[in-house]
Amino acid sequence: MKVVQLTSDKKKIEVVLTPALLPLYDVENSIVVVIDIFRATSSMCYGIENGAEAIIPVSQVEECIAYSEKGYLIAAERNGEVVEGFDFGNSPFSYTAEKVAGKTVVLTTTNGTHAIHLSRQAKKIAIGSFLNLSSLSNWLREQNENVLLVCAGWKNKVNLEDTVFAGAVVDKLRNDEHYKIDDSAIAAADLWSLAKDNLGAYLAKTSHSERLKKLGIEEDIAFCLNIDITSAIPVLDGEKLVKF
Amino acid sequence: MKVVQLTSDKKKIEVVLTPALLPLYDVENSIVVVIDIFRATSSMCYGIENGAEAIIPVSQVEECIAYSEKGYLIAAERNGEVVEGFDFGNSPFSYTAEKVAGKTVVLTTTNGTHAIHLSRQAKKIAIGSFLNLSSLSNWLREQNENVLLVCAGWKNKVNLEDTVFAGAVVDKLRNDEHYKIDDSAIAAADLWSLAKDNLGAYLAKTSHSERLKKLGIEEDIAFCLNIDITSAIPVLDGEKLVKF
Repeated sequence: MKVVQLTSDKKKIEVVLTPALLPLYDVENSIVVVIDIFRATSSMCYGIENGAEAIIPVSQVEECIAYSEKGYLIAAERNGEVVEGFDFGNSPFSYTAEKVAGKTVVLTTTNGTHAIHLSRQAKKIAIGSFLNLSSLSNWLREQNENVLLVCAGWKNKVNLEDTVFAGAVVDKLRNDEHYKIDDSAIAAADLWSLAKDNLGAYLAKTSHSERLKKLGIEEDIAFCLNIDITSAIPVLDGEKLVKF
Repeated sequence: MKVVQLTSDKKKIEVVLTPALLPLYDVENSIVVVIDIFRATSSMCYGIENGAEAIIPVSQVEECIAYSEKGYLIAAERNGEVVEGFDFGNSPFSYTAEKVAGKTVVLTTTNGTHAIHLSRQAKKIAIGSFLNLSSLSNWLREQNENVLLVCAGWKNKVNLEDTVFAGAVVDKLRNDEHYKIDDSAIAAADLWSLAKDNLGAYLAKTSHSERLKKLGIEEDIAFCLNIDITSAIPVLDGEKLVKF
């Protein structure tokens, strides 16, 4: 027999469309999922899946350098090129088992690190991307907590790829009647419904996509739109992302 | 012969999904359209269309009272009821020609006033609603300026009705190749494409709509979704909204 829950027992799923809006939400009583589809959180999911012991997200190339002295792999790009002296850039193709298994990688990502930093007070911080969509959604359902899907965006503005992914997660969870969803989540899920049959074509019209094309990373972008090719859930433990 | 414009000549159309994001945009070099569909900007459009000399938006009931001594009509509601001693509430049905022609009305609206206040530095501030959609869009095209469509939202969070209306304006202007649109504008226009064939049903699923239903103002809501029943463009002149 199905137990009917009272409204007050419902958990919330809310989409925070940019980190600038995070102060409006109850971060302390939520699990935060950080989303930075092109390319930070996709690379993190792929790296943790492929056996990286940990991934440390930092915002500045200079911070990376300090870590290299500890023997960590360091990844940094500027204008689409690997920074001289670094092990690799931010392409998900750098996070294969061959390269990262058993290692700790320090990754530079401005928008992603910003979103993680602002979410510090959350009950848990997890990392989402199309790569781990289903396993992330199942894991969230098991946690039975309020969920904040935090889009890293672009310099605090909204971007379509992070929003559409947030909508994909909402879509996975929304039929579960113990969740209550807000207007941002409805909007994101509706955008996902328009995008899902041809994600690449849908996202090709964004301005961000134009910018990424100029960087010559079309293959990275296509890779980041692969759905459910990983199952690991990276979660934050101190300063490090590790496998849950 | 069509003149081909350089990219740098393109004007921008951006959707500011909540006033909290306004600091990220170039307000000074833009025309701002303030959007608060349920019900402030709908009532403003209707009142100006119906011959109100001016409408003064304020955020507090107490400010309204000070204006009543100047002989202005004052409109204020709390919890869906007209405040005692006030001429009427915020229902658009209070803004008929019979009631407002030739008069100045002071209207309380928290979210709408907040959005207008934050937009003070704009080249012009205009008021948008479904009631004046086409005339507003045509007017914007004639102005040939950057456009910021500012959704008043709900306590700085995103709401669906303001977003969908912003999308309707984007949809009217987007085929004009001298505009460049951002990701928020793409998202809003796509939501409009899902909503436009049955706006009432689409918006019925929002949480805001639930709240408004409890206030017993379903008729107001249905009225605010009438498209193109007015043609006046309310614009801000000092503290007053007047007909452009």
